[in-house]
Parts: sequence; C-alpha cells; structure tokens
Amino acid sequence: MGDREKRDSYPKDQIVELLNQQQATKFREQFLMLHVYEQALIFVDLDEKQRARAYRYLTPAELADTFNAIEEEPEDVAEYFKEMSTKYAAGVISEMYTDNAVDILAYVDSVSLNKYLRLLPREDAAEIKEMLHYEDKTAGAIMATEFVKIIVNQTARSALHVLKKAAVDAETIYYSYVVDADDKLIGVVTLRDLLISDDDLLIEEIMNDQVMSVKVDDDQEDVAKTIRDYNFLAIPVTDYDEKMIGIITVDDIIDVIDEESAEDYSGLAGVDTEESSNNPFKSASKRLPWLVTLLFLGMSTATLISHYEQLVSEASILAVFISSITGTAGNAGTQSLAVAVRKLASKDDEEGLVRTIITELLTGLIIGVTTGLTIFIIVGIWKNNFVLGFVIGLAMMCAIVVANLAGSIIPMAMDKMGFDPAVASGPFISTLSDLTSVLIYFNIASLFLSFIVGK
Amino acid sequence: MGDREKRDSYPKDQIVELLNQQQATKFREQFLMLHVYEQALIFVDLDEKQRARAYRYLTPAELADTFNAIEEEPEDVAEYFKEMSTKYAAGVISEMYTDNAVDILAYVDSVSLNKYLRLLPREDAAEIKEMLHYEDKTAGAIMATEFVKIIVNQTARSALHVLKKAAVDAETIYYSYVVDADDKLIGVVTLRDLLISDDDLLIEEIMNDQVMSVKVDDDQEDVAKTIRDYNFLAIPVTDYDEKMIGIITVDDIIDVIDEESAEDYSGLAGVDTEESSNNPFKSASKRLPWLVTLLFLGMSTATLISHYEQLVSEASILAVFISSITGTAGNAGTQSLAVAVRKLASKDDEEGLVRTIITELLTGLIIGVTTGLTIFIIVGIWKNNFVLGFVIGLAMMCAIVVANLAGSIIPMAMDKMGFDPAVASGPFISTLSDLTSVLIYFNIASLFLSFIVGK
Repeated sequence: MGDREKRDSYPKDQIVELLNQQQATKFREQFLMLHVYEQALIFVDLDEKQRARAYRYLTPAELADTFNAIEEEPEDVAEYFKEMSTKYAAGVISEMYTDNAVDILAYVDSVSLNKYLRLLPREDAAEIKEMLHYEDKTAGAIMATEFVKIIVNQTARSALHVLKKAAVDAETIYYSYVVDADDKLIGVVTLRDLLISDDDLLIEEIMNDQVMSVKVDDDQEDVAKTIRDYNFLAIPVTDYDEKMIGIITVDDIIDVIDEESAEDYSGLAGVDTEESSNNPFKSASKRLPWLVTLLFLGMSTATLISHYEQLVSEASILAVFISSITGTAGNAGTQSLAVAVRKLASKDDEEGLVRTIITELLTGLIIGVTTGLTIFIIVGIWKNNFVLGFVIGLAMMCAIVVANLAGSIIPMAMDKMGFDPAVASGPFISTLSDLTSVLIYFNIASLFLSFIVGK
Repeated sequence: MGDREKRDSYPKDQIVELLNQQQATKFREQFLMLHVYEQALIFVDLDEKQRARAYRYLTPAELADTFNAIEEEPEDVAEYFKEMSTKYAAGVISEMYTDNAVDILAYVDSVSLNKYLRLLPREDAAEIKEMLHYEDKTAGAIMATEFVKIIVNQTARSALHVLKKAAVDAETIYYSYVVDADDKLIGVVTLRDLLISDDDLLIEEIMNDQVMSVKVDDDQEDVAKTIRDYNFLAIPVTDYDEKMIGIITVDDIIDVIDEESAEDYSGLAGVDTEESSNNPFKSASKRLPWLVTLLFLGMSTATLISHYEQLVSEASILAVFISSITGTAGNAGTQSLAVAVRKLASKDDEEGLVRTIITELLTGLIIGVTTGLTIFIIVGIWKNNFVLGFVIGLAMMCAIVVANLAGSIIPMAMDKMGFDPAVASGPFISTLSDLTSVLIYFNIASLFLSFIVGK
C-alpha cells in the first residue's frame, strides 16, 4: 500500500526491460498496474521491436486505454496503426473513446481507414464516419459519444440501475442526460442528485431542466468558456434537431484552453512555441519564415530612411535617436496588441470597436505625452538643444499614438474579417511601427532642420 | 422545460428590477433558479442600495453559493463584507468553500477578521486561521477542506451511506479518500467504483491504493500539471504527516492554468494584459512604468550611437540600416525568449542548461547566416555596394546570434536564480538587443569604413 506522492519514479526502465526479455506475464502485470498516463509515457518511448511485442502482450482494449492517454500529435500516433494487424488496429479503434479515435483516424490513409471501418460494429463505424466530418476546433470535433442518456419517465432507482450498467463505457457517469420520447435533451441529473434523492422519486422531479448545451458546430473556445465559467464537469452537445449526440468533458477543455493560450502566445512572439525539437535545423526552419518576411518589411523602413539620407548627412545627430523612437513605439504597440488579443480571446468585452479604439487612442495619447515629455527633457539637457528635444519628443509621441492604435485596430479588424487575430504577431506590429515611426520622425525633423543644425 | 443552449439571455434586468421594487419573494424565486455563475454576474453589477436588499432577501447560505462563483478580485469581494452585519458576514463565510473564503479574508482588516472568526464554529475558525498562513500559489492556498474521507474497514454499502450524508457539503463526492486508523491517506475510491461494485465488498478490496497526492506547499503549477496529465477531477493534499487535509478540484486548476499562461503572456508583452479597465488613465499607468524604464535603457543605445556620430556623418548610408538590424535581431530574440519561457513553464524539458544553450546557439547561427546572406544580397544589389552588403550582413548575423542567446539564457538564468522567468519581458530583450546590435554594427562598420565610403 503506497503513500507515495508525485510519481516521478514509476518503474519505467524495469517495465521496458520486461519487454526486452519477452516476459509477457510480468510485463502485463506491471504495465497494467500503472496509470494510463504513465503507460502512455512508456509506450511512446518504445522502439519498433518493443512495440511489436506490446501489441502481442496487450489486448486491443488494454492498448486502447493507453492510446486514449497519449498526448503526442495524432499524426504520430497514426503511424503506430500501420504496425498493427488490421484486425488488432480495428480492435483498438473500437475500444478508444470516439473523439480520440477520430483525431487519429483523420491522419490514416483512406484505404486503411475503410479496412478498419469494415471491421468495426456498424454503429461505431457510422459514428466515426460522421465525426470525421466535423470541422476542426468545433464542439463536434472534440466531443465523445460515450455518454449516459436516461429517459424521463422512470424513478431514481431505475435510473441508478441504468447508470451502473453504463458505467463501464461512458466517459463520465457523474452527469446523466435526460431525454424525452423524441430523444430531445430536456434535463440533466447529477449522480449526486440521484444519490441523495428518495429512490422512488421520478427523474422528472429530480432533474435540472435548465440544462445547458452547445451546438455541434460551436467553436471549441466558446465551449471552453462555458464549461469554465459554470464549473461544469461536462456539457452535452446537440445537433440541429436538439438531439443529444455527444458530450465534452472538462479534461478535453483543459487541453483546449492550453492550446488556445499557446496560440495567442506564439502569435505575440512570431514563433510556434510548441516546437519541442532540440534539432537546431528544425527550430530555425520554424522561425525563419517570419523573420525573413519581416526583414523584407523592414527593408521598406530602410528604403524610407534612405530617402532621407541627405537629411541625415546634414544632421547626423538625427541617426542617434532612430532606435529610441522605433524601439519605444514598438514596445507600446506590442503592449496594446497584447491587451487587444487577450480581450478578443476572452470575449468578455462586448463594448464594440469604436469604444475600444477611443480608449486605446486616449491611452496612447497619455502614454505618448508622458514619454515624449520625458525624452524632450532628457535630450534637451543632454545635447543642450531643446529644439532637438522637441523634435524627438513630438516624434516619439506621434509614433507611440500610431503604434498603439495599430496594435489594437489590426487584431480587431482581423477578428471582424474572420481571421485569427493572434496572427497579427508582435514582431509584425513592431516592424510596421518601425516604418511609421521613421516616417513621422524624419518628417517632423525636416520641418525643424534649420533649428537643429543651426544651433 | 427548456431546450435552450447558451444562456446569453437569462433575465438579468428583470431580476434587478424586482430588487428595486422590493419584491422579496419574486426576487428569491427568480434569482435562486439561476446558475450560481449567473447569480454572481448579477450580484457584482448591483449598486450599494440593491446589495443591501439582497443581503436582506437572501440567507447567508444562499449568498455564500453566489460568492463561491464570483470571479472578481478577492480584494473587491472583501469590500462587500463591510456592508453586511458582522453576523451575516460570518454566516456567509462559514457557508462558503474554505478556499474561496480564505482568498477573500486575506483582504479583510484584522479587527473584522477576528470578529468573524469568533462567530464561526470553532473548527471552521481554526481551519481558516490555518489556511490563511499558506503561501500564495501553493497547494495549501488553493485547496478546499470539504472532502469525503472514509475509513478503510467498511463495505461499499456503508461507504455509500457515508457519501450520501456528505454529499450536501463536499466540494466533490466523485472521489472518496480512504484513510487508515492514523488518519493517513492510503487509497481512493471513485463513486463509479462504488456503484459498480458488489455492495458487500470491503473498501480495501475496491480502492485504488496507488493514490497520488500533493504536499501542502507544492507549487500550484505542479499541481495543475499533475491533474492535467492524469485527467483527475481532484487530487488530495496532505501535510507532512501524510495526513489528508484538503482537496484541489479541476475547476480550481483551470483558473491556475489560465493565470499562469496569462502571466507568461503578459511578460512577453511587457504589460499586464488582465487590465480590464476602460479607463485610459488606468491603462496608461499600468503600461508606462515598463515603457519609461525601457526608454532609459534605450537611451544607452542612443548614447552609443552618439559615440559613433562622427562615423555616421562620414557614411550616412549606415543610418539607413540601423533599424533593419536592431529590428531583425529584436524579433529573433523575442522568438527565442518565447520558446525558452514556454519550455520553462511546461517543465517538460529536463535536458539542462548547457544542452539548451548549445541548441539555441546553433539555431541562432543558422538563422543568422540565412538572414545575413539575404540582406547581403539585397543591399549589395540595391546600393550596388557589396562591401556595404557584407558589413550589414555580418552585423545582422552577429546581432541575431547574440539576441538569440540572450533570449534563451536570460530567462533560464532568472529561473535558476529563483525569479519568475516571465519577468524578462519581450520588450526588455528587444531593447537590450538594440544596444548590442548597434555596438556590433558600428564596430564592424568602422573596420570597413574606407571601403564603404571609398566606393
């Protein structure tokens, strides 16, 4: 009997060794005692020969449990199916939760897919085919079809009886969904309610008829927000006929929340931060496209400055402050971008575009004036030239206001146009802001050129 | 009976109107029918007068349910307690889940706190006092103390009986924790197991003795990772005597995941993105400290360029490419920073500092060479000056390698030193990278000056 805590130390190597020694019984004993998450960690580290043995030692149902817990990319998991006999693979698929199986099957070639589907019970095959059609990142794509459905005209006792039978397969038995004669979702009963109710009460009297559900094509982000706000363990998914067709559980939602926030984060940095590779070539190939694209965008800034080269050669002091102005405006733009993307992601903000733009404009003005005044004083004193200070301060103020506005308007406009606002990355905004900052800076500077050099 | 889905349209205004009209009975009827999350949304929008009525119409237990669901900052919720009678406030506190109550009580002045604690049952008061001592962001600070504990020497039937009685108060009844005679945690039984087992089986035979737990001072991020990986609905918290003292449920963990990823994100942007305010002064005051700090750091770049002013006046063409080089290096630094912070946050990467630094160095070299070659060709052709192109290309390559290394080393070093790596924000890295880029650029340029101008 264990009182162990975090299991950093489950006997991974020992279990792999049992595979190497072909000790089927001992392997099964030790492997199956582990939590499925640990089983999955072991499985993904096996080599091909070891995996072949695992397929022989484990039943499809046992391996299905492990596969349900694998967190690798589904395209990688699909490769494993190629190593199995068609019948074994079909067995694993049929025993997995439908949502997980479908994720993987999306990456299986159509010939193999049809072979598997032919070996599955007709109903399962139909369900999988149906689910393969749901669009990525919708409720349909992440739902499981293993849920407990009970009819309304029965007592708590008989419902508990139904539940006990369903308990083996269902993804959760803690919520039972109540349907009417037409199979429409009309209520929900928690297991807690069932347990504390009088056994002879009718489900109709116990159930909560304020059941919330999501539509099959709802965005997974919206589903996540609902589950999170209401602290549900699961939420039912209905089709357009109000019929219940699936369930989304809180553990699926945690993955969605993580995925969505990783996307926002990657967008802000202009890099896919999920790159787990330690291969520098792979890492570089993921980062270079953005960098080179931005380099070309940055060349327009260079072209612009090139235009003002004459000005710079007359007043080389101007070159000193280019990076201060572009840098500060870029930082301000990144800040307002981050706030805007976050607001859009949380969707808490329904105040409308105009309101947000006005707020951001005012925020930009306050920041711009403060920062501009600061640099005015610094430059004025440092270079003993308050005209130069004024030019730098004014340029910085204007550049900040523009960058701030761009940082909030661009993601919002992209969102309105149906693009993912996180694509408007931080580096993109700051490179764009370099361009406008330089334009503003040299235009203001040329107006005051005689005063700057004259001094 | 409803078949409604997302409830954007619960009758909020109507319920507030009932408060205004002092219709206590109708208000109670409609308000209490709502989900607690919706109750909370309504409550936080009430004015003082309306709240005073709510305190009169609702029992402390009813308001406690609402308060459990409030998502405002705990310091704001603490303000509400000042409006209540001491007895009513104590009632609300005693009926709330301990973790939520403690969050709020941390912001109550000590005189009021003592008044409340005196009115609470002695055991509750002791528990709250105990929990007020747990450090922020540890398991102890987010755990609830309402859990189901069963002793090992009983049948499934008798355990179910215990559960039914506990069902009213416990935060979850879906896991029951099994303790031995010394009150030590030795197993866990899910309600699913209890239901499908023979009623006469002993708990010892049904329970899973591989129960995982966390220690009271474990970091909340580690707790979140365990719950997420293992798909638990809850995890028990033990003290140093292996005694179980609390439970952390999956809904608390979702908030932790969100909070932690928001922190990483805010760090990358150099702004607290949770600023929900629409007040430009408030927004500006949150963003200005970073911007002004970075402006001063940026001034060192200006000082540096100022040092090379003579060089610029001789070859004003050099000014044209300052922003391309600083911008591209800044972008590369931000990318490697984001990857490093993410790796640290997921803690999946245990390969050690040296390995990561080498990878990042190689990645930087590949990116630097590619980008450097690109700009060499562009500038060479554009300005018909391949020496200039070489200078720009070489400078960009070196600047990128340095920025890449800084982006990964700085957060890792901060992590090793016990600081939050996310504090090394994106703007900080790119401003720092401006400085090094300019230094590299002008040094290389001065070596080749005669060739650049000579041409």
